[in-house]
Amino acid sequence: MIYLDNAATTFPKPEEVYEAVLSCMKNYGANPGRAGHKLALSAGRIIYEARENLSKLFNIDNPMNIIFTYNATDSLNLAIKGIVQKGDHIITTSMEHNSVIRPIKELEKIGVENTIVQCNELGELNPDDIKKAIKKNTKLIVTTHSSNVCGTIVDIEAIGKIAREMNITYLVDAAQTAGVYDIDVKKMNIDMLALPGHKGLLGPQGTGVLYLKEGVKLNQLREGGTGSKSEELTQPHIIPDRYESGTPNTPGIAGLNEGVKFILKEGIDKIRRYEEELTQYFIDGLKEIPMVKIYGPKNSKKQSSVVSINVGEEDSSEISYVLDSVFNIATRSGLHCAPLAHKTLGTFEQGTVRFSIGYFNNKEEINKALQALKSIVAEIK
Amino acid sequence: MIYLDNAATTFPKPEEVYEAVLSCMKNYGANPGRAGHKLALSAGRIIYEARENLSKLFNIDNPMNIIFTYNATDSLNLAIKGIVQKGDHIITTSMEHNSVIRPIKELEKIGVENTIVQCNELGELNPDDIKKAIKKNTKLIVTTHSSNVCGTIVDIEAIGKIAREMNITYLVDAAQTAGVYDIDVKKMNIDMLALPGHKGLLGPQGTGVLYLKEGVKLNQLREGGTGSKSEELTQPHIIPDRYESGTPNTPGIAGLNEGVKFILKEGIDKIRRYEEELTQYFIDGLKEIPMVKIYGPKNSKKQSSVVSINVGEEDSSEISYVLDSVFNIATRSGLHCAPLAHKTLGTFEQGTVRFSIGYFNNKEEINKALQALKSIVAEIK
Repeated sequence: MIYLDNAATTFPKPEEVYEAVLSCMKNYGANPGRAGHKLALSAGRIIYEARENLSKLFNIDNPMNIIFTYNATDSLNLAIKGIVQKGDHIITTSMEHNSVIRPIKELEKIGVENTIVQCNELGELNPDDIKKAIKKNTKLIVTTHSSNVCGTIVDIEAIGKIAREMNITYLVDAAQTAGVYDIDVKKMNIDMLALPGHKGLLGPQGTGVLYLKEGVKLNQLREGGTGSKSEELTQPHIIPDRYESGTPNTPGIAGLNEGVKFILKEGIDKIRRYEEELTQYFIDGLKEIPMVKIYGPKNSKKQSSVVSINVGEEDSSEISYVLDSVFNIATRSGLHCAPLAHKTLGTFEQGTVRFSIGYFNNKEEINKALQALKSIVAEIK
Repeated sequence: MIYLDNAATTFPKPEEVYEAVLSCMKNYGANPGRAGHKLALSAGRIIYEARENLSKLFNIDNPMNIIFTYNATDSLNLAIKGIVQKGDHIITTSMEHNSVIRPIKELEKIGVENTIVQCNELGELNPDDIKKAIKKNTKLIVTTHSSNVCGTIVDIEAIGKIAREMNITYLVDAAQTAGVYDIDVKKMNIDMLALPGHKGLLGPQGTGVLYLKEGVKLNQLREGGTGSKSEELTQPHIIPDRYESGTPNTPGIAGLNEGVKFILKEGIDKIRRYEEELTQYFIDGLKEIPMVKIYGPKNSKKQSSVVSINVGEEDSSEISYVLDSVFNIATRSGLHCAPLAHKTLGTFEQGTVRFSIGYFNNKEEINKALQALKSIVAEIK
């Protein structure tokens, strides 16, 4: 199987990730922060270590500003719903995933307004359009760092600057870039950063992260046991406990810790350059194939390692199906949970066939994918 | 290490659980329900199989009424907040965990009333007291199945009957009993059942379950990508997708599936009888030790395998610390995230030392725990 669905979840993971998950379950599978015995303390320590390593990766001063969640969707819901109230205004873009758009649409019911800034047909956002959308009651700007449909990269530093100047909270959805692109929360003025553990960060599924800048206060999504202030009937305000009710995914976080350590060891520039090179190689190969339409910038300096295409007027799910069943190549078809992005790109009816490249792919696999597409096109013609 | 903290998380797990987690990560670590390729389909299949096996265990007709969550706290927040609105009334008990009490207290802010029915000093609930608390606007009754502090079992069938008669939704928190006690959602009239995957169900941490009776509709806690109805900007109403936004913990659910299969294979009666026997043996031994005060029913027919004690007026955390550091025995001390339960038992100041027995404990370990307590008492006297 040639796995080119890394934008959904990276596969495989570094060997150390598997080992850490297993070792946690087998050797110290206790409940962190709930008891003082040795196994529980080991569990607590690995979680703290994961906070520290994530902090290194994103230039975060205080590891306690790292909140562990179920997945990036959980992080985004907490961040978006936690910060606004009735009468507030949110700005976002037409390239967002449903994990951003749907919570924002839900908030309309309680009187939170929104503006969805339109991107161009390559999925590109003009930061000035964000600035123009700011109103007196704008409380939050949310943008992705890179489109999950066509990879287009957003200039988050430019938007961070606007947000800072206007004193508006800036939330970045780094689902497609964390672990591959350099994200510096201080330099980029990011107030909240939502991350999936299981994509570029190379951890297991069932892990999400939300970074909260010192001083940013949210209403929590869930209340419950936190292992702290057990005597109180209301949620404690200690960070990160306030946002981390219930038993965390300790084995998953132990695995994520190893994923992040792997990235720190390899170096994020090396990872990014490698993915850029493969992506450009793939795009250049695609350009040679008749009937293949490529969406987005078609330039690996302007897009992450996500490439969406269509073959003539063929149904995208049909092409994905043939790639899987005949050529043993895993891709994703359809709307990729981002309907407005498809309206922006003009692919709402057809969907797209999405190839997403990871650090463990190689040129030979890309060649096979290109060859498979050539065969499919030859068959159709 | 003698592990007697199974009420926090069971440890160890059956070997098949470890193997399933690892096999999922290594062999089909793709994203379920998001693509049509072979690996994604395998991931989707294992999740469906887990729904089926959970349905068998709890006598649930439709596996699609099983919702996967992050943990039992997540399940309880979804169930409680999803069903009530301003003006409604909730009934619960003084033996609940903070994962029930804190969401209910939070709901006071939006005008949802509550009555906390007082249990007696053994933690016992009189079902009549629930009945008496019912008001015209009572929408929800929530009770635990067994106290996480002293194990006292609640007659959930009796309360289910009352709830059914009065047409009130009944939510059971089975955190301490699922996988050990026979829970039949139909016979017991349970409308919603909240479960942790990592306790009696023997799965990994990072897995929770909420069963919703056919026809029970909740407001979701989170919106996002569901892999279904991607074209819509609002959350789809399909079950379970509506409540399962974002990438699930596939390896965790694969492990949970094996935990549940282990229980189905062993037989739940065998598991319960074994734990009952060890628990009674432990209680009987404790009664022989001077200065040891035991809380709760002191009868394994009336309590789950959770036994809380104190030694004279000693601080509970001091006793737990000595058990761990000198005798290598893992217990939990303090308030166990259930302050009202401690007020009920009269242990709010001192907390308790909690021993919680699992299916992988044996009599020799119980003997060592009793011996350790005898030594501690001898030292203090």
